[in-house]
Amino acid sequence: MKQLGTHIVVDAWQCPADILNDPDLIRQAILDAIAAGSATLIDICVHQFSPHGVTATATLAESHIAIHTWPEYGYFAADLFFCGCGEPEKAAEMLKTRLEAKQTRVQEFWRGMGYPVPVPDTISDHTWNKVPEIASSSKLMSTVS
Amino acid sequence: MKQLGTHIVVDAWQCPADILNDPDLIRQAILDAIAAGSATLIDICVHQFSPHGVTATATLAESHIAIHTWPEYGYFAADLFFCGCGEPEKAAEMLKTRLEAKQTRVQEFWRGMGYPVPVPDTISDHTWNKVPEIASSSKLMSTVS
Repeated sequence: MKQLGTHIVVDAWQCPADILNDPDLIRQAILDAIAAGSATLIDICVHQFSPHGVTATATLAESHIAIHTWPEYGYFAADLFFCGCGEPEKAAEMLKTRLEAKQTRVQEFWRGMGYPVPVPDTISDHTWNKVPEIASSSKLMSTVS
Repeated sequence: MKQLGTHIVVDAWQCPADILNDPDLIRQAILDAIAAGSATLIDICVHQFSPHGVTATATLAESHIAIHTWPEYGYFAADLFFCGCGEPEKAAEMLKTRLEAKQTRVQEFWRGMGYPVPVPDTISDHTWNKVPEIASSSKLMSTVS
């Protein structure tokens, strides 16, 4: 089976706590990411937890964006799943920028592939000697610190 | 930083097309998965595409479940992100059962960890000689074919 979707997994640290705890800012960051990624919003849910933390999921015509924040750690986890159209890398960059992340780990997964297929691209900032089966449909895109 | 969330990534093949194209069945499968995983639903969005395919995102008190289906390929991609409470593995099993997947690849990622930390667990059905940096916070949980 061919690649059907591109899944960008973002882990981000050293973000300002007040940003990560503001549901309006999180909502706007997602909307900006959707625009940057040339995607189309179907529905969005933003939920603030007590005493802190925000969860948001955006259903897209291209698939979805989800984000979960831990203001107390300055950390957020985001997933951007795009199938076919759109530019998930640009959407991820926008999220990182809007939420002022100073350190990030960004991984890209190809979804829908048949059983493990090696990724031909080189891996920035990391090397490995053997493509492991478990990671064969993923690649590390960038690391900023 | 400690582990903050468990992210189960499911790729599933050989599912009946009529199930994958039925938004009501997808919705019920997600609700059953939420119950199986002892999770709490905040909001759910289920969207059917034309001519086929369903996307659904469920916002949870524990984080989220998202699923995207390609009935024409008998394939679906699901992500189950749980932080703290709940049992995401049981939720994933329920999804696979309800959608009658005959072949699946299930990977678990630890989110929120500091920069790559080796996963101590063994990997079922696969071996590798060296834990690669990119995959150090993931493990393959099970493969059914």
